[in-house]
Amino acid sequence: MQGLHLTADLHHCSCASAWLLDAPLLGVACRDAVQAAGLQAVGELFHAFPATAHGPGGVTATILLAESHLCVHTWPEQRAVTLDVYVCNFGADHSAKAQALLDGLVALFMPGHTEQHSVQRGSLR
Amino acid sequence: MQGLHLTADLHHCSCASAWLLDAPLLGVACRDAVQAAGLQAVGELFHAFPATAHGPGGVTATILLAESHLCVHTWPEQRAVTLDVYVCNFGADHSAKAQALLDGLVALFMPGHTEQHSVQRGSLR
Repeated sequence: MQGLHLTADLHHCSCASAWLLDAPLLGVACRDAVQAAGLQAVGELFHAFPATAHGPGGVTATILLAESHLCVHTWPEQRAVTLDVYVCNFGADHSAKAQALLDGLVALFMPGHTEQHSVQRGSLR
Repeated sequence: MQGLHLTADLHHCSCASAWLLDAPLLGVACRDAVQAAGLQAVGELFHAFPATAHGPGGVTATILLAESHLCVHTWPEQRAVTLDVYVCNFGADHSAKAQALLDGLVALFMPGHTEQHSVQRGSLR
């Protein structure tokens, strides 16, 4: 269960609005990014939220990985996105692949400002 | 998108093995815990991993929330579990509900040792 959890909070995203609004389209991008990073998808779940008085609804894309999970939440009214990539290192160290996946998705959304955190998971101290 | 992300890594879990092995059963427990905490499920995805040379396969349970997500990964061969509860505070502060959900699931797994982290998400600094 030992592994690496990367989070990124993206602000001022200047990507095409479709990436923030279109769940199936974002799903394809997530699937492609997982594959490009060399990680293995085992399940996926996409959800589009209804519009509110604040503007169009965001989307959530989750891909379960053999190595753990990817979660993307978009906030189109704020041009903002949160990313989570968690990989366990069962069998091999997947940290570099996790970073590659995160970097690929950050590039997709073209944020003006990014806040990143990294948490080592599962170590007994 | 501003919110609270709680993580917990549980070791030496002394719960019944079914909670670590049975994806549908764990799914029901997660659904119940989400409801008990006053959060709103909008989708769910459960996955059971095949057994390996190390022992029986673990399970992953993800519940998408109106407020963001819950992810549970189990590692039965290590009697270990990782929990992620991320809630955004769109409309209201859901931090207490997130903590209640995490606490409910920690209690289910009965860990001998728990490592928790808390990350504030989405604030522009």
